[in-house]
Amino acid sequence: MQVPLTIGDFLDRAATVYAGRPAVVDEPGTPGSLGVLTYADLEARARGMALALDDMGVAHGERVAIVSPNATRFMISFFGVSAFGRVLVPVNFRLNSEEVQYIVEHSGASVLLVDPEIEGAVSAVTAKERIVLDGVDDRGLFDPAGPGRSPAGWKADENATVSVNYTSGTTARPKGVQLTHRNCWLNASIFGWHTTVTDRDVFLHTLPMFHCNGWGMPYAVTAMGCKQIVQRKVDGEEILRRVAEHGVTLMCGAPAVVAAILDAAAARKERGEEIPGGDQVRIVVAGAPPPSKTIERVSGELGWEFIQIYGLTETSPLLTINRARAEWDGADPQQRAQLLSRAGVPRRGGENADERGR
Amino acid sequence: MQVPLTIGDFLDRAATVYAGRPAVVDEPGTPGSLGVLTYADLEARARGMALALDDMGVAHGERVAIVSPNATRFMISFFGVSAFGRVLVPVNFRLNSEEVQYIVEHSGASVLLVDPEIEGAVSAVTAKERIVLDGVDDRGLFDPAGPGRSPAGWKADENATVSVNYTSGTTARPKGVQLTHRNCWLNASIFGWHTTVTDRDVFLHTLPMFHCNGWGMPYAVTAMGCKQIVQRKVDGEEILRRVAEHGVTLMCGAPAVVAAILDAAAARKERGEEIPGGDQVRIVVAGAPPPSKTIERVSGELGWEFIQIYGLTETSPLLTINRARAEWDGADPQQRAQLLSRAGVPRRGGENADERGR
Repeated sequence: MQVPLTIGDFLDRAATVYAGRPAVVDEPGTPGSLGVLTYADLEARARGMALALDDMGVAHGERVAIVSPNATRFMISFFGVSAFGRVLVPVNFRLNSEEVQYIVEHSGASVLLVDPEIEGAVSAVTAKERIVLDGVDDRGLFDPAGPGRSPAGWKADENATVSVNYTSGTTARPKGVQLTHRNCWLNASIFGWHTTVTDRDVFLHTLPMFHCNGWGMPYAVTAMGCKQIVQRKVDGEEILRRVAEHGVTLMCGAPAVVAAILDAAAARKERGEEIPGGDQVRIVVAGAPPPSKTIERVSGELGWEFIQIYGLTETSPLLTINRARAEWDGADPQQRAQLLSRAGVPRRGGENADERGR
Repeated sequence: MQVPLTIGDFLDRAATVYAGRPAVVDEPGTPGSLGVLTYADLEARARGMALALDDMGVAHGERVAIVSPNATRFMISFFGVSAFGRVLVPVNFRLNSEEVQYIVEHSGASVLLVDPEIEGAVSAVTAKERIVLDGVDDRGLFDPAGPGRSPAGWKADENATVSVNYTSGTTARPKGVQLTHRNCWLNASIFGWHTTVTDRDVFLHTLPMFHCNGWGMPYAVTAMGCKQIVQRKVDGEEILRRVAEHGVTLMCGAPAVVAAILDAAAARKERGEEIPGGDQVRIVVAGAPPPSKTIERVSGELGWEFIQIYGLTETSPLLTINRARAEWDGADPQQRAQLLSRAGVPRRGGENADERGR
């Protein structure tokens, strides 16, 4: 018997092994903030979402689009939609109405979930069902299910689609990338392994969840039962404040996030304030590696570990990782930063590289 | 396109990313010891083994049995046999001739590899090809391949068999468990993730490689490019000596291994000698958890981390892991040891546990 790899495995494990542990801390002070959910709560709400989608007549395989900054309802949707056989379409919340409308139509989404802060910008976008995520009238999509209620049975299939992630469309219209359960499961596990995610990690959501499903890290940190802190907006000082408040150990982001943190740390230093997270935080950065001077500052000024990855939405996304090797421990900070600014290694062999006949 | 998960991925990655790094340190002073191999060497020898098997007319899918304590040639065989489409049959080297003969015949192995130290005990065992692993006349099975030579193409298939592992046969004859590439790939990755194997780890082979392929840890530590130290025989003092000499950080074993280490450490203490590996070594233990007093001593007397796992050969083998949680950090050593002596958690839900309809 072959057990299919589906992203529901991660939530299932967390709810079994870490039921009472804080799972997701929502952004405080926003409309409809869900506060702190445990993994039992997260599972009950994901299941509740699946039940509500059943009630709304949204069939397995149908698409549910979401336009939202990072939020607990987004985390619930990762599982409430995809773990029960439907397909999530996370949309870049910085797109305009016309672009969002295109994606909703192109993906064939029958449900559109819109964060209240984004609602103004995309009020013209239409969909069969259109729900604002302010906790007021959401068709019960985010209500927890009781222990006795099971959503309509879905025959788990690792080749079923988890999500359709639209790339930026620099050359023409955005293109939708279909990621399967197998894609996302393997990416999350391998990414989690390489970044040594454990149940002792506290993850800060600095990376947009819409961006290739937060690079799959939301699945990985859920699998390990990590405490997750939602952050809606990138703000360097706010990141530092949360690192101190929650004991954050792990975050992901584009080079711009690193720059914002370094600026905030420099300002703190000028004010004679402490920089939190030293020897404790690792920050995973993707895209073009930042200048090696920036990497050097992450270690020198923050005392954080810098990890460079490379990938594409089309590859789920992780392709390569560069984490400081023991062999580099003796190198001076500048050399070390240079070594860390590479995104891969040369492929061995030429035409015979594929030596096992694959 | 779906890329099959095969255990060759692990060696391929190591040889690409960590070509020049020491991979396997063979037991010194044994007949035909291979000394220190880099990952480039390990890959070239695994490929060389596949080429030699080609030359011997051993078809893809055929079985190659090995009766050997831990050895570098065993490590080469894990990949030289299985990564190129054949099936390894690792045999318990403590079995008698009749039992080994049964397994060779039952598995249909056409090749039998025998360690020189075992040879005397199993000299009566016959096979189509029978090779003693003393480096004298081994049909070139352990010669490195040049960069230009490719073994016969094997269409990689994750559902192909990696190995047939015979269980102890307490109720009758030993039973062969067929593990697939997918089984072994997933087990190694998840086991490696949970035990946070990184490229900074130095792994000591205290667990017999024949035992469910060393629980899959040889694949995981190869994937991460860890330095691996072969140890042929469990001997507590020798383990401590190697921890000091090589900077070992990770090992696996039955409770008896833990007991041997604790005895050796107590003897060292009496002689006023240092106990190496404090705050550095984690030891992964499977089977019936040892008494909580033993677990307490691992932390108290060695300063090592104790990790309890549970599994079966039939489950590749990892099923559950118990690693100390942050929530237990405040517990007194006795309580902590008790918490660590459990091998699982209660399954949530009753008849509705299977809530996603799976």
